[in-house]
Amino acid sequence: MITSASNVQIKKVQQILKKAKVRREEQVFAVEGIKMFSEVPKSRLQKVYLSQSFARKEECEKILLEKGISIEETEYVELVDDKIFKNLSDTVTPQGVLCLVKMENYTLSEILSGEENPLLMILEDLQDPGNLGTILRTGEGAGVTGVIMSRTSVDVFNPKVIRSTMGSVYRMPIIYVNSIEEEVLPLLKEKGITTYAAHLKGRNDYDEECYTKGTAFLIGNEGNGLTEQLTESADTLIKIPMQGKVESLNAAMASGILMYEAYRQRRKN
Amino acid sequence: MITSASNVQIKKVQQILKKAKVRREEQVFAVEGIKMFSEVPKSRLQKVYLSQSFARKEECEKILLEKGISIEETEYVELVDDKIFKNLSDTVTPQGVLCLVKMENYTLSEILSGEENPLLMILEDLQDPGNLGTILRTGEGAGVTGVIMSRTSVDVFNPKVIRSTMGSVYRMPIIYVNSIEEEVLPLLKEKGITTYAAHLKGRNDYDEECYTKGTAFLIGNEGNGLTEQLTESADTLIKIPMQGKVESLNAAMASGILMYEAYRQRRKN
Repeated sequence: MITSASNVQIKKVQQILKKAKVRREEQVFAVEGIKMFSEVPKSRLQKVYLSQSFARKEECEKILLEKGISIEETEYVELVDDKIFKNLSDTVTPQGVLCLVKMENYTLSEILSGEENPLLMILEDLQDPGNLGTILRTGEGAGVTGVIMSRTSVDVFNPKVIRSTMGSVYRMPIIYVNSIEEEVLPLLKEKGITTYAAHLKGRNDYDEECYTKGTAFLIGNEGNGLTEQLTESADTLIKIPMQGKVESLNAAMASGILMYEAYRQRRKN
Repeated sequence: MITSASNVQIKKVQQILKKAKVRREEQVFAVEGIKMFSEVPKSRLQKVYLSQSFARKEECEKILLEKGISIEETEYVELVDDKIFKNLSDTVTPQGVLCLVKMENYTLSEILSGEENPLLMILEDLQDPGNLGTILRTGEGAGVTGVIMSRTSVDVFNPKVIRSTMGSVYRMPIIYVNSIEEEVLPLLKEKGITTYAAHLKGRNDYDEECYTKGTAFLIGNEGNGLTEQLTESADTLIKIPMQGKVESLNAAMASGILMYEAYRQRRKN
């Protein structure tokens, strides 16, 4: 059992929780809680840390068993003193289970090759962890094929993002690119995927376009919207109509409304 | 100028920021920042607190002028020492303007009398401030007539809710009720307004129902969903279809998708 705060593994986990750079280098991220542990595909599970008191509980035995792991398998399982565990945890009332999960790396070609009519979200410089998490969760629900983000966006393996995905982070293909314009748009054009930018200057309302073929929605930064450059590169500008004095919708909400409109059309089709 | 942290007004503002009970008793709430100040209807403005350094800026003069107020009008304006102001503020980088706004009280009958085919959101025990703020903002955009909440829900005048409404808190009629079943549903029935509960057991998908007549959507608590009692009282259960392993959508997202589907139908009608 780990009883020292200066234990090498503990130090590493703390860094993985805090630093995107360390996560990228190690190619792992950390998830907390019973639900998030239960949903990790076993092939991607690198290590489980259990608090001493949680390890004694029946529930602990049950969730390990479901994953086909015994508490004695030190290859996977590490017990941690309660106090040390509490310090490790990012939450106020830790459930006593935290694990390291291997990242899965996709290429844009892989994402595009899987489906005849892909539905993609392209996020430019999105900053709010809750927004990104909500987009992944809602996107999985709406049948989104993958999420492409500019490198300047919030890190998807940030603990706050992970929490708000409710498990979608394991299942939604995600890639970061240095330049949406150079690395993504040409490939989409080649594949016949239409790009739609949500923009106040949109010509048509979002529900007047057809999204049953290959579709990509471009969503911009929370404060500034899409850059002019990317707006101009989009095939079509669409707008979400708004009554009252509302100037814009929250980025996750706008994404959700667009994704569910696409899903609605695809179900009716 | 207020230079003491124990000043009576400062103490009062702090309580108004922190306690829903004090806000209710005083019938005022506090809003922060330039945008929120600019959007307050003057008739509801009770007092403006300006930090000493913001008061010296041209921008300050400009936003006061737009509201028809001079910095000398002590009836409205109070200068506050920068340090005291910083303590007062709920934000990390205060913009230097905070004001007290009178609440507006509505009755359900008033809300219902304004429109032929009202679109209502009924929120049962919603707890997350960001969710409520997003529902108000998106709801204003979708043309929602009013929002009705159970008394156990988060307080709409909580500073975190106010911030995420982006001004909709001034414009969206909101009421709290002790019992949705006893105080709200009978009146809706009488007026011929159909209630729809978003529920996993919904018979039809949400986009297979017609929302062009009087419509009320029932949304439940983030963790537990709608109570069984209220679910049974709804006229129709609807479901938002979900692909993948998503078990539910975030409460604000589900609300937004329903409100914008209603708005879509109403625009096409």
